[in-house]
Amino acid sequence: MIVGVDIGGTTTKIGVVNDGRVTATKRIPTLGDDALGTEPGSAFADAITQTIRSMDASPLNAIGIGVPNGNPFTGSIDRAPNLPWKSDIPLARMLKDRMGVQCALGNDANAAALGEWKYGAGRGTNDLLVVTLGTGLGSGFIIDGRLLLGPHGNAGELGHTIAVMDGRMCTCGRRGCLEAYVSIRGIRQTYLELADSSELLQQEGVKPIADAAQNGDDAAVQAFRDTARWLATALANAVAFSVPERIVLFGGIARNGDVLMNPLCRYFKEALFYIYEGKVELMLSALPEDDAGILGAAALVDP
Amino acid sequence: MIVGVDIGGTTTKIGVVNDGRVTATKRIPTLGDDALGTEPGSAFADAITQTIRSMDASPLNAIGIGVPNGNPFTGSIDRAPNLPWKSDIPLARMLKDRMGVQCALGNDANAAALGEWKYGAGRGTNDLLVVTLGTGLGSGFIIDGRLLLGPHGNAGELGHTIAVMDGRMCTCGRRGCLEAYVSIRGIRQTYLELADSSELLQQEGVKPIADAAQNGDDAAVQAFRDTARWLATALANAVAFSVPERIVLFGGIARNGDVLMNPLCRYFKEALFYIYEGKVELMLSALPEDDAGILGAAALVDP
Repeated sequence: MIVGVDIGGTTTKIGVVNDGRVTATKRIPTLGDDALGTEPGSAFADAITQTIRSMDASPLNAIGIGVPNGNPFTGSIDRAPNLPWKSDIPLARMLKDRMGVQCALGNDANAAALGEWKYGAGRGTNDLLVVTLGTGLGSGFIIDGRLLLGPHGNAGELGHTIAVMDGRMCTCGRRGCLEAYVSIRGIRQTYLELADSSELLQQEGVKPIADAAQNGDDAAVQAFRDTARWLATALANAVAFSVPERIVLFGGIARNGDVLMNPLCRYFKEALFYIYEGKVELMLSALPEDDAGILGAAALVDP
Repeated sequence: MIVGVDIGGTTTKIGVVNDGRVTATKRIPTLGDDALGTEPGSAFADAITQTIRSMDASPLNAIGIGVPNGNPFTGSIDRAPNLPWKSDIPLARMLKDRMGVQCALGNDANAAALGEWKYGAGRGTNDLLVVTLGTGLGSGFIIDGRLLLGPHGNAGELGHTIAVMDGRMCTCGRRGCLEAYVSIRGIRQTYLELADSSELLQQEGVKPIADAAQNGDDAAVQAFRDTARWLATALANAVAFSVPERIVLFGGIARNGDVLMNPLCRYFKEALFYIYEGKVELMLSALPEDDAGILGAAALVDP
């Protein structure tokens, strides 16, 4: 049995994985309230430990942890802007101390890539790209049967490649990052620039825009088309780098179906350099949403 | 002893490499005149064979061949637009038959990357990007101590990534490829768009523009600045893929010194995502120009 720990900005999902299937799941808040004098992250490590002990996970072989800004080489969460800690948290070591089993930690986008590769739509490939579309844009590459980490553990990050020179301001302080266009925030911004009214933006997320697009709303249709075009160009450029056999799209935005996928497939074909024609499949994740992060985290063990 | 064969559009350089140094060089035309009834490429393979036999290359261990559109998996030159053959030429097999030694063939940009890695400015690195700036823009990645080939032998090609959506027409039929901006042709085009006169374009190449830039000609200075900015953005995006410890620039354009390198270093720093700050060196090739292609071709043997 492996436990997968999928850490998000507010909620952490903990799941027991047996033979590639999630057999039990619990959720706890991602919390940073450490008692005075204790090591930063202690309260959270304690909460994870208690939760795992309350689940049917024995014999437990290992724990895999997927987290934004997870550093696979140190096993630490490096100061992540959307997480509660202001210092690096050596969570792999802290859980190993508490649970007495091997703990592997990695960033969430790489976890998603490994999850798709081992258990999802990427099975059977040797070269794979998984792009996670959500609040941000994450990505992970499998190259010749190995997860691409780079010398510092942070390679394969498409979200902050520059898609449009002198483009939109990004949260990272630069202009034109792919994530400023292809993400929940990006699509909402694109819609705002195209629409006469911001009514659809009163709710969070992109579902209202996707629904409107499905009903033929011009600005909404165009917002998804523009998003598809930026993403298609970035994917075609990524193909020129590692030539994945398959690209798997994962996350909330990807689940908006035809309004994104139809123009995406068309633009991707147009943007692809001819020597790569017919060599790359583009498809949606096949993993159940609730399980994907847990399976990905579990996949970090023995990647 | 290894013989390196560096095949260009009009001239092929053949050199003897001993312990990382070129000890002898000869040049022959890259010719496609095959006698009726002979295998396409025979005349060229015969000419290479005769040239090697006329040189002091014994005991000969192996031959390495660097060539545009070289396919490392088949050992063939796949129909290259700028070479004289209209079919695939299995040159590695043809030379092996004639010379009786192991022959390795690969594309010229990957040869340049291996040459820099083994013998040049990339020595001692485990993760390297080499960009060749000339008639076109070629690139080769070393990732975790291995040349990146991809499943079809054609990975790591930055030249036809899209740098500017809806940008300039490229020779490949698409718009906005990096090579349409950052190459001899690209710089000349950029200068043409900026200058009041096309006088500097009456000579071939970019040297007249580089000389004018050194003398303070506004359009020429701006042409190199713009080129540097497009290249810097592409390099920063490439860093987000594989996080090379070093980027080595190779080829004619790179030798124009400060007019390119000063703005390039400035823009590269601006374009780099902060998590990669201080992790990537940018430098010029240190290999003698005449030897580089031969050393690179030789490096294809046991990459």
